[in-house]
Amino acid sequence: MHILDIILKKRNGRKLTREEITFIVDGYTKDMIPDYQVSAFLMAVYFRGMDQDETLWLTEAMLHSGDIVDLSNIPGIKVDKHSTGGVGDKTTLIIGPIVASCGVPVAKMSGRGLGHTGGTIDKLESIPGFRTNLSKEEFVENVREIGLAVAGQTGNLAPADKKFYALRDVTGTIENISLIAASIMSKKLASGSDAITLDIKTGSGAFMKTVEDATVLGRAMVDIGHGAGKKITALITEMDRPLGLAIGNALEVAEAINVLKGDGPQDLTQVCIELASNMLMHGGKGTMETCRRLAANALADGSAMMKLVEMIKRQGGDPGVAEDPSRLPKAPIQVEWKADISGYIHSMQAEKLGMASMVLGAGRKTKTDVIDPSSGIVLLKKAGDRIDKGEPLAILHTSVEETIAEATSLLYSSIRVQSEPVEQRPLILGRVE
Amino acid sequence: MHILDIILKKRNGRKLTREEITFIVDGYTKDMIPDYQVSAFLMAVYFRGMDQDETLWLTEAMLHSGDIVDLSNIPGIKVDKHSTGGVGDKTTLIIGPIVASCGVPVAKMSGRGLGHTGGTIDKLESIPGFRTNLSKEEFVENVREIGLAVAGQTGNLAPADKKFYALRDVTGTIENISLIAASIMSKKLASGSDAITLDIKTGSGAFMKTVEDATVLGRAMVDIGHGAGKKITALITEMDRPLGLAIGNALEVAEAINVLKGDGPQDLTQVCIELASNMLMHGGKGTMETCRRLAANALADGSAMMKLVEMIKRQGGDPGVAEDPSRLPKAPIQVEWKADISGYIHSMQAEKLGMASMVLGAGRKTKTDVIDPSSGIVLLKKAGDRIDKGEPLAILHTSVEETIAEATSLLYSSIRVQSEPVEQRPLILGRVE
Repeated sequence: MHILDIILKKRNGRKLTREEITFIVDGYTKDMIPDYQVSAFLMAVYFRGMDQDETLWLTEAMLHSGDIVDLSNIPGIKVDKHSTGGVGDKTTLIIGPIVASCGVPVAKMSGRGLGHTGGTIDKLESIPGFRTNLSKEEFVENVREIGLAVAGQTGNLAPADKKFYALRDVTGTIENISLIAASIMSKKLASGSDAITLDIKTGSGAFMKTVEDATVLGRAMVDIGHGAGKKITALITEMDRPLGLAIGNALEVAEAINVLKGDGPQDLTQVCIELASNMLMHGGKGTMETCRRLAANALADGSAMMKLVEMIKRQGGDPGVAEDPSRLPKAPIQVEWKADISGYIHSMQAEKLGMASMVLGAGRKTKTDVIDPSSGIVLLKKAGDRIDKGEPLAILHTSVEETIAEATSLLYSSIRVQSEPVEQRPLILGRVE
Repeated sequence: MHILDIILKKRNGRKLTREEITFIVDGYTKDMIPDYQVSAFLMAVYFRGMDQDETLWLTEAMLHSGDIVDLSNIPGIKVDKHSTGGVGDKTTLIIGPIVASCGVPVAKMSGRGLGHTGGTIDKLESIPGFRTNLSKEEFVENVREIGLAVAGQTGNLAPADKKFYALRDVTGTIENISLIAASIMSKKLASGSDAITLDIKTGSGAFMKTVEDATVLGRAMVDIGHGAGKKITALITEMDRPLGLAIGNALEVAEAINVLKGDGPQDLTQVCIELASNMLMHGGKGTMETCRRLAANALADGSAMMKLVEMIKRQGGDPGVAEDPSRLPKAPIQVEWKADISGYIHSMQAEKLGMASMVLGAGRKTKTDVIDPSSGIVLLKKAGDRIDKGEPLAILHTSVEETIAEATSLLYSSIRVQSEPVEQRPLILGRVE
């Protein structure tokens, strides 16, 4: 088999075989095929695409390039979720405890934030003492003991994906549905769960800008999951506006705690119940309707909250934050952002809110930036609300006074106000299964 | 300027600026842009193409990456020709002397053969003592003194093209008209002539298989030439069948000498007169009709032959080969290839004849192979001819008896015989100017 023949075959629009795809993935991972041939191949894939079989074979080749977490010692159906990333997306902190408290084990590996989107690992690390770098053994042990672990990636999962992603990042070959789907799914499958719920964020604050694109990506990922013998569903959820009111790490943990206390923003609570119900359904707990009731009960009776406390303890964090969120890091500077006009908020672009939060210190422009866990934004108003000139729209939290001007200017550019009330689109925009 | 932005711009189908194209050519030539980004860019160009401006800018950026031969000290309009490569294509050995003997200076740099196509430099080197590795100074001096030099590439011409071509060769990005045209033309423009005649070979034995494709390539190259301020014409010529009867280095030199003596095959003579007339017209010698007469006279009165002898002497070769071609290397083994059927030759695929000649020792499978100047094929019959079973169709020349079986099998697979006479398409298939 020759790499050049494979490049030409894809370039000419022909379907590759499983052997050819495995050859290129293995060869590149083992440094036997040079990067300049792989990048030409990836650009050919960008233009020609891959069909359902090829996408599955690519995923499986990347999956088998490294370790697969073995959860087989844990009884029951192990469930996982994945979000394609958004602004104010703290759902894992809420859903994990809900689902685990209902008796379905959740084994979740998460990532860090980059650019305008946050990462669950950064959020959890704002809890004093909380450890996210669990060993593979600890990770599995925690899921077995308390039904829940959320950690950074452990072990050598899908190293091929890491190499391919780094190359795609610098060669203009990120934006291809098959390559995106295979990248996400190779890591998810390597995490070892039996069922996967995908949360495909859609809108200005997300990677997928339209419901149509999100649905295509969801279809590709769900097809891979089925091909690999997993239970899998994708929900297409709203991300023109941020989820909840808090953006920024400690601020989002505090908001997640509020939701678990039954006291959180309605939009965030609704999306969490929907995702959690889906995971419970995968976990064998009945119909979606039954599972929605189970999830709501777990919030109402405090069992989800207790599960979060259990996880925080288990991973070395200060469980006192649940009772007293003031134990979370607090930014020394807090200033109001005020409306400069009256009317109804037509929209507040999530991407710009995420960037403003990043500017205040909550995010990373580049991978090596250090984040400030205390900084970020808490919205007081959201799209659809009536506002009056001079009224505070949000509180900005930061440790660096100089960042406020830039963040404020981003906020003003994010908002559109009009004289008539505006209806907002639903939070759940679609479902692929 | 960022290379990733340029890749994305081309990938998304937008037109690049001259600055962007120069940035990528300079950056790659100076090792400041890594090959994996350039190969992704080239694959994007494969799919999106380049327009006339972009193709010219690419050519000029590659041209200016190295030296440009300075022919300004030589009086008159200096003319050059380029053939895209074929089987039995010894036209340079005939045209150069014709044109120079008519008083138009010819400064021609040529290449070596690879695969089924031959190279002028290899052919000339079969003349005992002939030197093709002239210094830049010798090359210019010879053109000034005797109006003719044919040499290998001297100096550091278009080094960017060399780097780009090597990368294209291993990344499936050869077959794009703009990239092909810019590659050829950057080298031609670096050779410093004022006028260029392109011979675009078309058919089974050539890179361009159809007249349509050849015309598109011709258009692209002629546009570049005009953009660079040169006189330029492209002729589309027949290469389903080989040109003349001889294939192989010394055998082709002998045939070229026959043409110069007025005693060569009619097809070869006609194509040479057409190409030479075109060069003479560029050189200011009148209309095509006038120039055709001039070229025919140069053959008839022996002045072209004398010019060849002058060039051979000047470049250190044995001028006696002109009078006595038996002084050229002779293969120890000569065997007949005989017809196994009677009828009319419908076709003899030039590509397979070229491969058979290569197998006998006349060509290179890979760049490092050593060729045998004496070996090759001399056809006794050509497409359109009537043949009888058992009649010899060609003489195979070789130094290695073991090659004959494979060569003969290639020859049998090249020929198609039918019961009715077949008309052949004309030798000159088109003209782009």
